[in-house]
Amino acid sequence: MDSYLIQVNGHGNHAPILDVHLKTNGNSISLGKVKGRKGRWAVRASEMSKKTFNPVRAIVDSMKVEPNPKKAMISLSLGDPTVFGNLPTNDEVTRAVKEVLDSGHYNGYAPSVGYLSCREAVAAYYNCPEAPLEAQDIILTSGCSQAIELALAVLAKPGQNILVPRPGFSLYKTLALSMGIEVKLYNLLPEKAWEIDLKHLESLVDEKTACLIVNNPSNPCGSVFSKSHLQKILAVASRQCVPILADEIYGDMVFADCKYEPIATLSTNVPILSCGGLAKRWLVPGWRMGWILIHDRRDIFGNEIRDGLLRLSQRILGPCTIVQGALERILHRTPPEFYHNTLSILKSNADLCYAALSAIPGLQPVRPTGAMYLMVEIEMEHFPEFENDVEFTERLISEQSVFCLPATCFEYPNFFRVVITVPEEMILEACSRIQEFCETHYQGAEGAQDLECDK
Amino acid sequence: MDSYLIQVNGHGNHAPILDVHLKTNGNSISLGKVKGRKGRWAVRASEMSKKTFNPVRAIVDSMKVEPNPKKAMISLSLGDPTVFGNLPTNDEVTRAVKEVLDSGHYNGYAPSVGYLSCREAVAAYYNCPEAPLEAQDIILTSGCSQAIELALAVLAKPGQNILVPRPGFSLYKTLALSMGIEVKLYNLLPEKAWEIDLKHLESLVDEKTACLIVNNPSNPCGSVFSKSHLQKILAVASRQCVPILADEIYGDMVFADCKYEPIATLSTNVPILSCGGLAKRWLVPGWRMGWILIHDRRDIFGNEIRDGLLRLSQRILGPCTIVQGALERILHRTPPEFYHNTLSILKSNADLCYAALSAIPGLQPVRPTGAMYLMVEIEMEHFPEFENDVEFTERLISEQSVFCLPATCFEYPNFFRVVITVPEEMILEACSRIQEFCETHYQGAEGAQDLECDK
Repeated sequence: MDSYLIQVNGHGNHAPILDVHLKTNGNSISLGKVKGRKGRWAVRASEMSKKTFNPVRAIVDSMKVEPNPKKAMISLSLGDPTVFGNLPTNDEVTRAVKEVLDSGHYNGYAPSVGYLSCREAVAAYYNCPEAPLEAQDIILTSGCSQAIELALAVLAKPGQNILVPRPGFSLYKTLALSMGIEVKLYNLLPEKAWEIDLKHLESLVDEKTACLIVNNPSNPCGSVFSKSHLQKILAVASRQCVPILADEIYGDMVFADCKYEPIATLSTNVPILSCGGLAKRWLVPGWRMGWILIHDRRDIFGNEIRDGLLRLSQRILGPCTIVQGALERILHRTPPEFYHNTLSILKSNADLCYAALSAIPGLQPVRPTGAMYLMVEIEMEHFPEFENDVEFTERLISEQSVFCLPATCFEYPNFFRVVITVPEEMILEACSRIQEFCETHYQGAEGAQDLECDK
Repeated sequence: MDSYLIQVNGHGNHAPILDVHLKTNGNSISLGKVKGRKGRWAVRASEMSKKTFNPVRAIVDSMKVEPNPKKAMISLSLGDPTVFGNLPTNDEVTRAVKEVLDSGHYNGYAPSVGYLSCREAVAAYYNCPEAPLEAQDIILTSGCSQAIELALAVLAKPGQNILVPRPGFSLYKTLALSMGIEVKLYNLLPEKAWEIDLKHLESLVDEKTACLIVNNPSNPCGSVFSKSHLQKILAVASRQCVPILADEIYGDMVFADCKYEPIATLSTNVPILSCGGLAKRWLVPGWRMGWILIHDRRDIFGNEIRDGLLRLSQRILGPCTIVQGALERILHRTPPEFYHNTLSILKSNADLCYAALSAIPGLQPVRPTGAMYLMVEIEMEHFPEFENDVEFTERLISEQSVFCLPATCFEYPNFFRVVITVPEEMILEACSRIQEFCETHYQGAEGAQDLECDK
């Protein structure tokens, strides 16, 4: 550390006048030698900012199409359940935040990993005998996105790779590439309700594999893994000694005939960082309240990973304190009927949408069992006008004013994703327009010449 | 992109059964060849997490001292004005958030750079003829910490360097080192009310200098730069073609006899990212509402930096929407008396504290003119019992139960920082205890042998 020789030259009402002589490693600084820059402005954005690339944004931005002005736009593209007002959050949720505001006790800085009492509340909520949790196992984050960012940033370093589902949520790749981490995509199998191709998964593991991302329930698939399938995934992770980053933001959002199993409850040895938050189940994605649950019963993460998460959390200091302060009340007071009601609307929409799309020539929807999405295969051979799912969905906008995300956004061409949180009448109208669109463009096995006859 | 050959094998009530054959660049995947990992667990935290190092935390954690059980603890260490309840935020601020909660309109995802209407509100609030701002010049962030993180991440890349004030806020260094960016410390001069040593500053610029951080008003100094000094700083930046990252989180928080000039209002050419937020002036640091104002009237940043900020903002998706939604009302409705009242309390505390500490043998406080801090020099030659400021402040805790941060936390040994947001009676009690402490340990010019006589 540099040494300072400080002499007091004055002392009065004003700041004391000090005379500072700076020495750096015994050498005085040569103030005359100003090398400086080239004398011209050349400000370049960093590589990291250039590598931070959101494929959904890039694909959607490139879809420069106007909707049909004769039809009102129906957007089934955005995974935001609040857009249409048909799925408001529960009054207890907003009331909890208002009480916190009135208290005036949650306006200051919280610890960067969150208030201890709020971490305790999350731990108590998710604690169970199979996967016990205490406050120290919880890191509160600015939304589930930051939870995933912190988990990736602590587990993987540049040059390592992570295993990511295909189709899968684009943020994993966006974050990984911006950090110089390689992404290896493992396949989900639509014919098996989007289970993981376990052999393919295991074939991708190598010595540079830093973690396996398991997203259950799935965005974009709307699928939910069975207990036995999760056990097989854990067997791969255990055999290969690969920790799991579980994206469980849609945890508990499964339809009545299906059961959600937090992956950590099924393992006693695989270390797991489970990422979640208020966004989807409590229908407040904008509030940016997320968390990491650290499951590490064999002490494999140990202090190494815990300390790393703590250090990383100090970069931006955690989530908004008025939401933190409301967490315990939100988790305990939200009535069960609220969750049931959301799920029954989602299930009803899923059933309607699945039935309607199943009847459309050239489309093959995959029935969802949870989350808020439904994936639809486009039998491209029956739509020779269109090169791919992006063109298909573009024309669906320009002709029918219906916007679905092409699954190329999820690394899975020739599918599109439907968001099922919109009001029922909108789902039905959208399906009806998709039917009209497909009937207009469908070409049977006999080929293009039949198009005119069919019309 | 990999190609999929998908054949439909079934179609019914359940998900259609598809048979997926995956081809990757013409080669089918060899599922037999499972290299895998070494068959043992070895999870290591990433280098980045290890490089994310908060010196304040490290120093404070190493100060393993117990306060004097006979005296109640007085902590003057934390830059959080909400701790003691004497500086509550204004009712209009909390009311604005409650109205937003009642509306139900701000629960969904905002764009990652913030709602357009909220960016407009911030632009309108800070817009002025000398430094015009529009919505597109505003990036909303999760607190000023994320504003600084994004600004650094877009401007600097690994191997480059940034110029950082000494003494200065530790987050700059924490963030820079975690990103592989070198930190060069330029000196502030206590004898000139903490103005920048401009020659020293300019001597540090080289071709790898990515930006200059200017923090005004200053944490930890409580100093406020004059217009002419800011112009001189801008002259250096302009001559050397170095963009400025202005940390102006204490903007407008200056005492009555002093004027705050946003640095961007004094330049027509230097590109500036000004970071600010609600934390300090509106007394809600936990709400994590920050912003970047992009000043770039010569188009030197251009789309390069704007696009980079936008891309980086997509990593964690911006600040809590219920605070965003309240921004316009907060900025417009908070009564001027609220700001005046805060500043008059701070000024009164600063005056009391400065007067009390000036009278203490061996201490040289520097009078603050803004922000919430006061720096005090320890004439170490008069306290030979203590090696440095860390030992001095440790003993101040164990004997007097008064906790001030040693300025080693700010790269500036032999000073300590006093936070002046605490209630007046606490300031006075703390100063009285500091006086007792110094009188106990002070040794005059005649040396240690006088200590016994003095007693």
